[in-house]
Amino acid sequence: MGDRYDVIGIGNAIVDVLARAEDDFLVRHGMVKGSMALIDEARAEAIYAAMGPAIEISGGSAANTVVGLASFGGRGAFVGTVKDDTLGHVFMHDIRAAGVGFAAEPFTNGPSTARSYILVTPDGERTMNTYLGAAQLLSAAEIAEDEIAAAKVVYLEGYLWDPQNAKDAFVKAAKIAHRAKRAVALTLSDPFCVDRYRDEFIALVKDGTVDLLFANESELKSLYETADFDGAVAALREIAKLAVVTRSEKGAIVVTPDKIEAVEAFAVDSVVDTTGAGDLFAAGFLFGFAHGLPHATSARLGALAAAEVISHLGARPERNLAELAREKRLLL
Amino acid sequence: MGDRYDVIGIGNAIVDVLARAEDDFLVRHGMVKGSMALIDEARAEAIYAAMGPAIEISGGSAANTVVGLASFGGRGAFVGTVKDDTLGHVFMHDIRAAGVGFAAEPFTNGPSTARSYILVTPDGERTMNTYLGAAQLLSAAEIAEDEIAAAKVVYLEGYLWDPQNAKDAFVKAAKIAHRAKRAVALTLSDPFCVDRYRDEFIALVKDGTVDLLFANESELKSLYETADFDGAVAALREIAKLAVVTRSEKGAIVVTPDKIEAVEAFAVDSVVDTTGAGDLFAAGFLFGFAHGLPHATSARLGALAAAEVISHLGARPERNLAELAREKRLLL
Repeated sequence: MGDRYDVIGIGNAIVDVLARAEDDFLVRHGMVKGSMALIDEARAEAIYAAMGPAIEISGGSAANTVVGLASFGGRGAFVGTVKDDTLGHVFMHDIRAAGVGFAAEPFTNGPSTARSYILVTPDGERTMNTYLGAAQLLSAAEIAEDEIAAAKVVYLEGYLWDPQNAKDAFVKAAKIAHRAKRAVALTLSDPFCVDRYRDEFIALVKDGTVDLLFANESELKSLYETADFDGAVAALREIAKLAVVTRSEKGAIVVTPDKIEAVEAFAVDSVVDTTGAGDLFAAGFLFGFAHGLPHATSARLGALAAAEVISHLGARPERNLAELAREKRLLL
Repeated sequence: MGDRYDVIGIGNAIVDVLARAEDDFLVRHGMVKGSMALIDEARAEAIYAAMGPAIEISGGSAANTVVGLASFGGRGAFVGTVKDDTLGHVFMHDIRAAGVGFAAEPFTNGPSTARSYILVTPDGERTMNTYLGAAQLLSAAEIAEDEIAAAKVVYLEGYLWDPQNAKDAFVKAAKIAHRAKRAVALTLSDPFCVDRYRDEFIALVKDGTVDLLFANESELKSLYETADFDGAVAALREIAKLAVVTRSEKGAIVVTPDKIEAVEAFAVDSVVDTTGAGDLFAAGFLFGFAHGLPHATSARLGALAAAEVISHLGARPERNLAELAREKRLLL
C-alpha cells in the first residue's frame, strides 16, 4: 500500500463565516462563549442577519489540521462532504490549493454546504454556531479502504460522533486503519461534545480504538467531570497510550504511561482569533509524530502552528509553517 | 429633502477572493502587477483554479469607501447590483451589517454576482482580476432621484465608465446631485481605466461635473501621460476645484486653485495587503469633507483609514475608524 499520506483527516467540511462581536451579543443570542453549538437553518439565518460584516474562509476542524500538516510539508488527505454549491466549491478549492488530497464528489442534491457562524469577541475567543448541512451526509460509503490504509495516521474529529452516519464512518475508518497497522488519532473537539459522548470517548481510548488522543484543558475536565486538572491527567494516563493536552498560553503536556512531558507555548503579540488553535496544534504534533520526531518536538511544532493561527482571523495558516519551523530551529 | 446621507456611493458590487501569490505567478498568468483587469468567466475559473487558498470578503471600490465612512460614524448609502446568489447575499449582508443603506433588490436572472480574484504579493501589493457579472447590470434605472438628492456627496467610481449602462447611471446621478446643489466626487480608480477614458475624465473635471477628484500618483500620471508628477499636479490645478492625490507612504496632497497642501501618511508596521488603500483614504476624506472639516484634517483621516486597511487582508476596515481617529486626536 505504501505511505501515500502522513495523515488522512475525516471530519465536517465547513466554511467559516467569521465576524467580530461584543460579549453582550453572545448573551443576547443565547450562545455559550468558547463552545460549538449545532444550529438549524432558521437559526443560521437569524444569527447571520444579526451579526456584523463577516469574512468567509474554509474551516472544519480536521480539515484545518490536514491543511496545517501540508503547510509543514506533510502529505495529507481529507474526507468530508460538501454540496455542489458556491461554498462547496470554495471549500474544495481551498483544501486542494493547500496541497491536500480531496477526492470526494460534491452532492448535487440535499442540504447546502456546512457553515459555521463564528463570533470573535474582543479577547480573541471564538464562539461557533454550526449548520452541518451537507456535512451530515458523511457516511461509511465515503470511507475508501485503500485511502485510509495508505495513511500513517487517520485523524478523526469528536464532532463526528453527532450524526449516526458519521459515527459509522468513524468506526469503519478506525477498523481499516488498525487492520493496516496504522495509528488512529482522535480530538475531543469541544467540552459539550465530550459531555454528549463521555462514556463512548473513554471507551474508545480504553479499548485501544484510539492510539493518540488530543484534548484541551476544558475538554479533559469535561471528560472526567472534574475541575481538578491534575486528577484528570492522572485518570487519562491510566487508559491512554499517548495523549496530548493543550493548555492555551500554558503550553501543552504529552501524556504516556511512563511519563508526562510539559512543553511551553510560543508567545503571541496579540491574540486576534483563537479559531483553529487546537486544530493547528494537532497539525504540528501529527507532522512530528508521522515523521518519528520526539513527542516534545512534535508538541512544540504544534504550539508554533497554534501561535501562528491565533495571530490572525481564520483557522487556516497564513504563513508557511515549514518555513516558520525552520526559523525557530524546530526543523532543519 | 434633508441630509439623509453624508455620502451615497455608486459602484460595482463585488466580493473579493483574496490569496497570497509570488510575483512569478502574476508573470505566468499575464497579469500587470498593481492593476485591475476585467476578465470573463472562463478566465475567472482558470485563475481561481490556479491560485492558492483564498478568503472571501466583500469589496468593490465605492462600497469599501462608504463602509469606511460608516466606520467613522458617517451616514452612507450604496447603489450597485448583485444577483440573488450566495455571494450576492454575502455582499448585501456585509454592507448592511456595516450600517450602510443598500436598498437594491438582487436580480433573480442573469450573470452571477461579481468577484474580483485578488493576488497579494509578498510586498503587500494587490493585483486584481475582476469578473463583473451582475455588477454590469447597473443602469440609470437603479438611480433613485430622492436617494441621490438626500446625500451631501455622491461618490462615483471611474470603473463605472467601462459598461455603457453604468456610465448612463453615473451621468444621471451627477445631474440629480447638481440640481439638488450636492457635490459630485469621482475616483479615477486605476491607471489603465484612466488610459481608456482619459479625455472624458478630464472633461468631467473641466466642465464642473466633478467637484472633488481622487487620484493616486500613477492614475494622475496616466491622466496627463507624463512621468513628471509636479507637472501633472500643476495641470490638474488648472482645471480642478478640489482634488486629492494620494502618494502611498509619502502621504497625500490636497490641490485647490489657490493652494497645494501636503499631509503625511501614518506609519504602518507591516504592509500586509494594499487592497482598499485608496478606497479607505477616500472614506476618511469624504467623512471630513461632509462634516466641514479643514481639507488637511480630512486628508489625515483618509491617511489613517488607509493605514488601517493595509495592515491586514481585505479592503474593509477591521477596527472602528471613529475610535481610531479619536485615539489619534483627529476627532473629538
